[in-house]
Amino acid sequence: MAESLHFRLARQSDLPLLIQLLVDDRLGSFREDFSDPINPRYLDAFSAIEKDPNNELIVVEWQQELAGMLQLTFIPYLSHMGSWRCMIEAVRVASHLRGRGFGTQMFQWSIEQARQRGCAMVQLTSNKQRADAIRFYRALGFVDSHEGFKLYLDSAQA
Amino acid sequence: MAESLHFRLARQSDLPLLIQLLVDDRLGSFREDFSDPINPRYLDAFSAIEKDPNNELIVVEWQQELAGMLQLTFIPYLSHMGSWRCMIEAVRVASHLRGRGFGTQMFQWSIEQARQRGCAMVQLTSNKQRADAIRFYRALGFVDSHEGFKLYLDSAQA
Repeated sequence: MAESLHFRLARQSDLPLLIQLLVDDRLGSFREDFSDPINPRYLDAFSAIEKDPNNELIVVEWQQELAGMLQLTFIPYLSHMGSWRCMIEAVRVASHLRGRGFGTQMFQWSIEQARQRGCAMVQLTSNKQRADAIRFYRALGFVDSHEGFKLYLDSAQA
Repeated sequence: MAESLHFRLARQSDLPLLIQLLVDDRLGSFREDFSDPINPRYLDAFSAIEKDPNNELIVVEWQQELAGMLQLTFIPYLSHMGSWRCMIEAVRVASHLRGRGFGTQMFQWSIEQARQRGCAMVQLTSNKQRADAIRFYRALGFVDSHEGFKLYLDSAQA
């Protein structure tokens, strides 16, 4: 039987642990700032997410412990006959809790949230360097029909 | 000298022409409903976009005529030290006005909007079938570092 995860909206007091989760990642380790007190940029971002009814930063707990995180963004579009989409981003599972199927449960939960909000589509992008993640998304039924393009704006970096 | 485009927020009265733009597309032609009066699903979507301060549906005009459209979504994230991203979607140029460099101007304008909102990144996905679009995004400096995954939720379809 699957181990039971608890999903809830993130609180500001979760931020130090959430930043640690972002740092504890092969690609994220060099682009985050895990200083104490926490960088105010994270507080600003948290506040913006919390205020936006179309963004949900989700904390995933297992046995009272932080097991993972993810962010859902609900976006209304004219296309596909005026349909909402759910974008899933910033999915992280604590490194010492990997291999237990938590990622699958987190996606099943997220897809159910998207259904409940009436979304016609769930979408995400995954760095092509994350071969395991790409196999995982395909196994969940996602189709990699699109190229995911990024353009960094240097002037906006602090 | 580049021909001058005018950019503004879409109004509800633009919807019939915007839906026509969505229909006038190789991939979009079979997934839209160009009936008159317009399908109320488009009105609902327009209303949701208009109410959301982090979504902007943009009409592009050239010589008082509809030349194109695009949608910008501004998303706050914890990752990358709490940075905003701008997602560009639903970019369309009227078929009889292609080949004039309007697409380039539309992206330059969008990237400037993203800078003004303090975004650290602009992102988009493009269907792998759109080979011309993919070349176009690369030429603009976008890097196709990611796979773009979609999962359609059948139960949500009307």
